[in-house]
Amino acid sequence: MAALTVSAASTSAGAPALPALSDIAAAHARVAPHVHRTPVMASRSLDALAGARLYFKCENFQKVGAFKARGATNAVFSLSDDEARRGVVTHSSGNHGAALAYAAARRGIRAWVVMPETAPRIKQDNVRGFGATIRFCAPTPQARAAACDEVQRETGATLIHPYDDARVIAGQGTAALELLEDVPDLDAIVAPVGGGGLLSGTAIAAKGVRPAVRVYGAEPANADDAWRSFASGRVEPVNPATTIADGLRTPLCPRTLAALRANVDAIGLASEAGVVAAMRATWERMKIVIEPSSAVPLAALVERTLDLAGARVGIVLSGGNVDCDRLPWQP
Amino acid sequence: MAALTVSAASTSAGAPALPALSDIAAAHARVAPHVHRTPVMASRSLDALAGARLYFKCENFQKVGAFKARGATNAVFSLSDDEARRGVVTHSSGNHGAALAYAAARRGIRAWVVMPETAPRIKQDNVRGFGATIRFCAPTPQARAAACDEVQRETGATLIHPYDDARVIAGQGTAALELLEDVPDLDAIVAPVGGGGLLSGTAIAAKGVRPAVRVYGAEPANADDAWRSFASGRVEPVNPATTIADGLRTPLCPRTLAALRANVDAIGLASEAGVVAAMRATWERMKIVIEPSSAVPLAALVERTLDLAGARVGIVLSGGNVDCDRLPWQP
Repeated sequence: MAALTVSAASTSAGAPALPALSDIAAAHARVAPHVHRTPVMASRSLDALAGARLYFKCENFQKVGAFKARGATNAVFSLSDDEARRGVVTHSSGNHGAALAYAAARRGIRAWVVMPETAPRIKQDNVRGFGATIRFCAPTPQARAAACDEVQRETGATLIHPYDDARVIAGQGTAALELLEDVPDLDAIVAPVGGGGLLSGTAIAAKGVRPAVRVYGAEPANADDAWRSFASGRVEPVNPATTIADGLRTPLCPRTLAALRANVDAIGLASEAGVVAAMRATWERMKIVIEPSSAVPLAALVERTLDLAGARVGIVLSGGNVDCDRLPWQP
Repeated sequence: MAALTVSAASTSAGAPALPALSDIAAAHARVAPHVHRTPVMASRSLDALAGARLYFKCENFQKVGAFKARGATNAVFSLSDDEARRGVVTHSSGNHGAALAYAAARRGIRAWVVMPETAPRIKQDNVRGFGATIRFCAPTPQARAAACDEVQRETGATLIHPYDDARVIAGQGTAALELLEDVPDLDAIVAPVGGGGLLSGTAIAAKGVRPAVRVYGAEPANADDAWRSFASGRVEPVNPATTIADGLRTPLCPRTLAALRANVDAIGLASEAGVVAAMRATWERMKIVIEPSSAVPLAALVERTLDLAGARVGIVLSGGNVDCDRLPWQP
């Protein structure tokens, strides 16, 4: 973490480092040349559904189709020249893998992405399209970690974890900074929570800029590990049950749990049917393509597990990468 | 056409009236409080597909989900108070019907929309949602015209034709005005052509503001009546063959044909497969929902029936109203 200045205020003995507002502001300056300043959109008919005034931060329009471009870019451009020369590695086959490949290409350094042999061709193509090297492994967490270690030993590449990394969290927080610049008088901000990188960065940024703002996570009831972890103060395991919001099937880590417990007001849950309905409503009313994870905050508002009636609410739409061959509302 | 000032320059003995640039500028001032100033979006990967630099005017984000809100609103707000008191009527069950209902609601006047008993429930709901009255008829052009006449006789309502109307054409042209304000140095603008209202307004506005700009129509090869009419100088009948771009299955009228012959450089054709592929690419790469008609200009560029290699090209995305239950690339 050479280039990251972690404020003393945000660390304590033994606790994992978290970015402060100043780190997120620095991240914003660092990533701005490389990522889109995404627009904020609104829709009266979605307002009516939610009973609130909604402002959608459209990270579905972001590079690689997801907010992940922010965190990966901040991490890659935070490396020293010496670190950068040895490249970066990660084990996410999803949006973070593509985002890291993108960021590495922007800096002109090498990237390795570990993914199971079973990963869909489109995910492989995404990563290769940015010039990254795929290292295949067996489809188990152990094999992934081993393959990552192997790449690091062989190459000296820096591991960039999808969320257990203060540089990544700082990058993800830049979306909330922009949202509050564009709509300063929000009462609340809601972001989906999987591993917690986006929600951590959002909460630290938002409370830093506007202490009165409330910050909420939204999670599928079928994957309520963040909700349980937030309540218990321990990282609880993910549910065996599945959810359509495939980006959110990830446990918190101690770092993101600490950020959430310090900065987040509550986590709202959404039913699977509610997520599908919110996703479809967003496509049909706002005319934008969002992935299921992006629809979870709206679903939690519509189902009133987050009751923000009448409030001015910012929602971070996490991404827009969907398989258009089959949509979740189709039989 | 009480409140429309048609410039002398744009009329000649016996020819149907067309708006001049000044009428389109007046229309812009008239509609601005009631319609969205839609954003202009770009996508490097769609640029690569087309071999040109593309600027998409996103009328899919417009009120009622289509550019039609502009023309209908200009027509409704051009009525004298006396005319307005008697209401408006049209016979389009598609986007224009909803747009007229919307505009009438904004002005607080009555609207009747004639549609066949077989019209899909969602189109009926759209129109009723704005408080308009549906007058059902048999599903033939004759029955539609008769029902329209009947409403006019009974109520004194003003017929607002979907495109054979200088006020409507002036309203549609306001999208191109905004596009050229946002991106002044375009080499060309492409709009889809059905009845020709959008393309007429686009061409008059664009050539008025920037005489050097080239203006093109784009049409499905399966519905090439505008292409044939443009060549022959007569309004040619629509093809019996069908197209996925259901908004473009409409013949020109003498008014729009005259506008096209005077202001449009060429019309490009697109295959059905090309339209579906362009629509899907726009959903997947730009993450926005567009209807098939909106994809026809991009398809014509990709298929090089409009060869604008290397040019800076504005594209008017006509709308985003799609049945998400079944998408055209799905079997």
